[in-house]
Amino acid sequence: DEAKIYYIRGIAVLQQCLSAKLQVIPPNDDNPDGVFVNIDRGLIIYICFLRGITDEKIEKLARSVLQAKLSENYESGGKLQNILQINGDVLIIPQATLGGKLKGKSMQYHTNLSKTEGLDVYNKFIDICKKLIQENKANSVVQNGTYGNRQVLNIQTNGPFTHFIHV
Amino acid sequence: DEAKIYYIRGIAVLQQCLSAKLQVIPPNDDNPDGVFVNIDRGLIIYICFLRGITDEKIEKLARSVLQAKLSENYESGGKLQNILQINGDVLIIPQATLGGKLKGKSMQYHTNLSKTEGLDVYNKFIDICKKLIQENKANSVVQNGTYGNRQVLNIQTNGPFTHFIHV
Repeated sequence: DEAKIYYIRGIAVLQQCLSAKLQVIPPNDDNPDGVFVNIDRGLIIYICFLRGITDEKIEKLARSVLQAKLSENYESGGKLQNILQINGDVLIIPQATLGGKLKGKSMQYHTNLSKTEGLDVYNKFIDICKKLIQENKANSVVQNGTYGNRQVLNIQTNGPFTHFIHV
Repeated sequence: DEAKIYYIRGIAVLQQCLSAKLQVIPPNDDNPDGVFVNIDRGLIIYICFLRGITDEKIEKLARSVLQAKLSENYESGGKLQNILQINGDVLIIPQATLGGKLKGKSMQYHTNLSKTEGLDVYNKFIDICKKLIQENKANSVVQNGTYGNRQVLNIQTNGPFTHFIHV
């Protein structure tokens, strides 16, 4: 048995995809279908930060997510490598719902950041991811969802290989 | 701050979808494209069980997942109800990777069930979900992935509203 005291401040759910398409601007007069971003093969990062998150933990989560060896390198027989090594794309999706805790039949979000703080931390996380990808000279496209919006999303995957990471 | 001792035995990641399509038989001579199941609007349940899981916890997780009020009832202005109340479909996807714990840059799965035990518990979970849906006279289609297979999957969602539940 593994007993630990947790103070979870940041949560990421990771899925592998062949492609994904995310709405970043909802339908409006100029764009009746909304505006979408696309990624090709790569990593979808659903992300949520909780009260008490620190800059150190934001950085740690970004490093963990991008350095975790969870992507098959098809050119080397399916060996697991991190998303930087396979030059995979990255789609970051804000998902405050991951901070929910079930009480009875309802979800409570008491430890979630306020919207203002949440947006600030979300932007920091994206910036760190972009910096790490640049530092590693990886040829990865980074796209991200619009904080606070409904995340209208299509995914194609040949195995989501879903992982849960927290800091 | 919230301090707890966790003994996590079962994990579910929940996502809302408009539709989803999952491969249940890989391509073979008779079915060159493989065989797929589909659901319409409903709930995707990624599920993983760990060593020490009990029948009580399997049942508790099934009830939690199906009774959690996470689905918008469009007919009542978006009020959140559970999947049974909106007669939404259910897609259960085995996802042993959710049991992973990151050590350095690699995932370890030391607390995962063996494949034989995992299949047994997975089948129990599906049976309980079907039983609960029948008891509630919900008009929900239940589909599920093939344990141990690669989960080739397409999802369309107008907001995954991702939640993490454990027992």
